Amino acid sequence: MLIVQKFGGSSVADAEKINRVAGIIADTYCDNNDVVVILSAQGDTTDDLLEKAAEINPNPSKRELDVLLSTGEQISVALMSMALERMGLPVVSLTGWQIQMSTNFEYGNARIHKVSTERIQQELDKRRIVIICGFQGVNGIGDITTLGRGGSDTSAVAIAAALHADKCQIYTDVEGVFTADPRKVEGAKKLDEITYDEMMELASLGAQVLHNRSVEMAKRYSVDLEVLSSYVRKPGTKVKEVVKNVEQMKISGIAKETNVARIAVCGVKDKPGIAFKLFRILAKAKINVDIILQSIDRNGANDISFTVAESDFKKALELVRENKDVIGYDEVMGETNVAKVSIVGAGMLSSSGIASTMFEALSDAGINIQMISTSEIKVSVLIDEYNADQAVQVIHNKFFN
Amino acid sequence: MLIVQKFGGSSVADAEKINRVAGIIADTYCDNNDVVVILSAQGDTTDDLLEKAAEINPNPSKRELDVLLSTGEQISVALMSMALERMGLPVVSLTGWQIQMSTNFEYGNARIHKVSTERIQQELDKRRIVIICGFQGVNGIGDITTLGRGGSDTSAVAIAAALHADKCQIYTDVEGVFTADPRKVEGAKKLDEITYDEMMELASLGAQVLHNRSVEMAKRYSVDLEVLSSYVRKPGTKVKEVVKNVEQMKISGIAKETNVARIAVCGVKDKPGIAFKLFRILAKAKINVDIILQSIDRNGANDISFTVAESDFKKALELVRENKDVIGYDEVMGETNVAKVSIVGAGMLSSSGIASTMFEALSDAGINIQMISTSEIKVSVLIDEYNADQAVQVIHNKFFN
Repeated sequence: MLIVQKFGGSSVADAEKINRVAGIIADTYCDNNDVVVILSAQGDTTDDLLEKAAEINPNPSKRELDVLLSTGEQISVALMSMALERMGLPVVSLTGWQIQMSTNFEYGNARIHKVSTERIQQELDKRRIVIICGFQGVNGIGDITTLGRGGSDTSAVAIAAALHADKCQIYTDVEGVFTADPRKVEGAKKLDEITYDEMMELASLGAQVLHNRSVEMAKRYSVDLEVLSSYVRKPGTKVKEVVKNVEQMKISGIAKETNVARIAVCGVKDKPGIAFKLFRILAKAKINVDIILQSIDRNGANDISFTVAESDFKKALELVRENKDVIGYDEVMGETNVAKVSIVGAGMLSSSGIASTMFEALSDAGINIQMISTSEIKVSVLIDEYNADQAVQVIHNKFFN
Repeated sequence: MLIVQKFGGSSVADAEKINRVAGIIADTYCDNNDVVVILSAQGDTTDDLLEKAAEINPNPSKRELDVLLSTGEQISVALMSMALERMGLPVVSLTGWQIQMSTNFEYGNARIHKVSTERIQQELDKRRIVIICGFQGVNGIGDITTLGRGGSDTSAVAIAAALHADKCQIYTDVEGVFTADPRKVEGAKKLDEITYDEMMELASLGAQVLHNRSVEMAKRYSVDLEVLSSYVRKPGTKVKEVVKNVEQMKISGIAKETNVARIAVCGVKDKPGIAFKLFRILAKAKINVDIILQSIDRNGANDISFTVAESDFKKALELVRENKDVIGYDEVMGETNVAKVSIVGAGMLSSSGIASTMFEALSDAGINIQMISTSEIKVSVLIDEYNADQAVQVIHNKFFN
């Protein structure tokens, strides 16, 4: 089999951890598999490099930042190769430009166009383990680019897709994907399988196991993905198109997001185009709006509530205030002490009453719902941040006990 | 003018030093010059990386070591570009592979085949300052190579030659090339000019200012070289084919080497081919022999004395002992407490009596000469290590006072 394995920065943070990961790679290779490994920069390397840069220029160009940061993975792959060499195994490291991981020109957040498999295949044909720098690529003029958040996961999936690998294993510091955060929710269970769509919803809700982009790409190219631990050697969670037990498991996960803020624009005139004006202003400032709720008050005027990321809150509020005359409203209010709790499950497609089960759990616990948003396989509610952990627990109890 | 400037690792060791160097580059650029800059890895980076490697594998492959070490210069060029960006100057960094610095396959000690000027020229045409990683190249299969000792100097000269640059300035932590080590020899003077040949002799004698390979390449391609300080802004020493004051200055420098050992093979039969046998054995073991002296003793047998680097001493002595029967001699002796003191000067070509002036100085000081070796522009003597510093001083006094 051809297996692509990806290890994150914390898994290669020091010599001891590198040796542990080298053990996993060696075992996979010695089981008569071809192995391609994607690595991130070691633990604090990226932060150290950013600090060096900040000392010299608080606002460097993204191009030079990519030149700087891409050294991190190069150090990782060289050290990992040395660890495998010491075990007497044939190994070769390759950078983003050496495998011609070609991307667009967006330094710092580049998108992959194409992966050349030529050099990788040559090395695999020699029965070498191939260790590749994640997170980095090269653009049309031969400049180094980096792929932004979750970049190494995306590298791994892209390479697995290009090589038609049998498996793409993403090793992390957790044992897989859980029904809820196991550090916080009693009874949280590891899932054996989850669909791409569910995983994407969970990822976009802040479950940090896998980045959205990588799951999206895995779905597009039908990459057989597995999330598993680099500390415990047991099966993780498989991410695939269709999972077997979708009928029994009505939902596959519960996620909580506290990096949320709510803005309420009250007394908006009930005229066409007002909402459009409001959200165009925010869109121009590249502020993503998540849940939107529109209601009519007693006086026939509209209240429009919406949520944004907490980091965009101040800017969004300012913009709404600055454009009071353009939008036309009486009052604007905002708060950041809110949280979004969501349930995700492909089972919703075929099973009714799932949303009401969630609402029932919250109602039983006396937790007030401020806003609701639903998609095909997700229900999200906005609640008081103070109640968020309790909410996840009572919903989890309702569905999984 | 097109000026190539090279700064070593100590000149870019921290943010403050990077900013100082950025000042030199900016001034050169603002004087309406095109500027190409070659950088080494920051101060301790290489040692830090080697330490990381040693923790994982005490004997890593040279290929992976090159992958690891080449990150050092990449960090330097990114940081320097950021410093220049902060000054508002247009700048771009390029790695060894980005300028297609193509080398042979000798990882860790690669030789340059060719430098492609295409990308550099494109950037210069946009009036950008170009900051290039020294010390590194890329071989025929696209692997990273490093150039070994003095590699960044060699990169600078190779790039200057390929670009037909008007000047190649090598910035160091000394003000130029001196008649002798200014920290040790009273009255040591900075030279305004020195010939390539003199510089090569001095470099091979351990005057660390410039590496031999870079001077050799500068001579071959007639690169206008200058050695100067990155701390003091004044003219340094120009290295060229012919210098003006060659008639007045009979010698241009005095160098001392203490990493020398002497081996004396006594009672060698006076038969043809004996010396050949002896030195072939050493050559096979890649031991360089420097000065050789052969003398006939009273009994008609030969004594052969020769010097090797102190690091080769033990091995050389063992080899001679192991091959006693093959070579055929009575006794072998060795000592490491010797030093080689040399005078170098193109003036020797046209001026006689220079060697005897040197010998006179040593004789006046009561310093015994054990061996003598001469070349067209160099006279070396082997003396007791204990007398070495005094010898350099008295010779310097004789020639320069």
